[in-house]
Amino acid sequence: MRDGRAATAPSQRVALGRHAERGQYDFETIAAILDEALVCHVGFVVDGQPYVIPTTYARIGHDLYLHGSPVARWIRVLGSRAPLCVTVTLLDGLVLARSAFRHSMNYRSVVVLGRATQVDDPQEKMGAFEALVEHVAPGRWNDGIRHPSDAEIRATMVLRIPLDEASAKMRKGPPLDAEGDLAREVWAGHLPMRWVAGDPIADPALAPSFEIPGYVAEYTRAAK
Amino acid sequence: MRDGRAATAPSQRVALGRHAERGQYDFETIAAILDEALVCHVGFVVDGQPYVIPTTYARIGHDLYLHGSPVARWIRVLGSRAPLCVTVTLLDGLVLARSAFRHSMNYRSVVVLGRATQVDDPQEKMGAFEALVEHVAPGRWNDGIRHPSDAEIRATMVLRIPLDEASAKMRKGPPLDAEGDLAREVWAGHLPMRWVAGDPIADPALAPSFEIPGYVAEYTRAAK
Repeated sequence: MRDGRAATAPSQRVALGRHAERGQYDFETIAAILDEALVCHVGFVVDGQPYVIPTTYARIGHDLYLHGSPVARWIRVLGSRAPLCVTVTLLDGLVLARSAFRHSMNYRSVVVLGRATQVDDPQEKMGAFEALVEHVAPGRWNDGIRHPSDAEIRATMVLRIPLDEASAKMRKGPPLDAEGDLAREVWAGHLPMRWVAGDPIADPALAPSFEIPGYVAEYTRAAK
Repeated sequence: MRDGRAATAPSQRVALGRHAERGQYDFETIAAILDEALVCHVGFVVDGQPYVIPTTYARIGHDLYLHGSPVARWIRVLGSRAPLCVTVTLLDGLVLARSAFRHSMNYRSVVVLGRATQVDDPQEKMGAFEALVEHVAPGRWNDGIRHPSDAEIRATMVLRIPLDEASAKMRKGPPLDAEGDLAREVWAGHLPMRWVAGDPIADPALAPSFEIPGYVAEYTRAAK
């Protein structure tokens, strides 16, 4: 996948079984989904028990970055090079078929398997912080926020996960009803869903003279 | 939790470590988050490797129901009573603080640990299918769709997961900047985010005379 394209799955573990036609393994597709979504779900194992927790992330090139307090269990487990799974899902719509059986969702998802490496280099950590802020709100890092202090950098664990073993899966478009159901007297189709931002709510401690920056006022998660 | 209220965590495994003030264990809170979200992320383990996959679900009382093709690996693993984790996350907004360090997300999430039981009783399976359809589009089950045939019921594995070991976690409201950062020249606040439905897209094979039903035309995921 490092060369930008992989028509086939990088490993059997991320190859799609069912609905193989929904699978994609090229890096651009995977990167675009990761860049559009905001939250990932990270899976890890403690004493044979799987745990799945939501957290933010950022992508820099062929790596994914996670961060958290070194006090948090999940990041300590992942920081010890335990096997992990990072899954990102964009729900694009509801698929309302004529039969209950053919109801479905339109979505784009990415699954990444691997192990994380703790990032110790302060410069790489700072780069990850910038990517994490810019992933959430592009334009904010250089809009006057205070960048992390040495103490804050030390107080944050940063993990790097290579995007070597990853796959994307997606479904789009109308329902696929069986021929025999097409004449049923019921509306069928699909309903697109999307994230939208509401009105920004200024911090109560903010001076009222502050203008809302454009990247907040016109916030969107649509693909760039 | 079966009595509707549990002020304390039902187990150490789902008790919150960091940000314990964000944790909630009462059933109504957990049920409301599960009912509002559409997709869960299910974690399971194969050969020590965690996997996390997105899927739909429905809640009936104190149980969660999942379904899938018996050919799919994840449901076969879960159907064999492997330990699992089901996580549901509602992203409610972005928290834009004056320091990079205090940036955060507003969210509501639920983590359920346990093991699934395969549902074999056709009547309970049918109830689960109804709940799954109604969870996605309330009103659709009795709007003329074809209910599952015996063959379709047999061709679908349904799993029941008790909501005995679950916790909710949430954050809301403005950023919490350190005193020393309050005077910085940067906009701070939070940006609410929500799911909205776009315009329904009728199936190309649908007769043009069909009216869009109200539960589709006025679709919303807001809490009931």
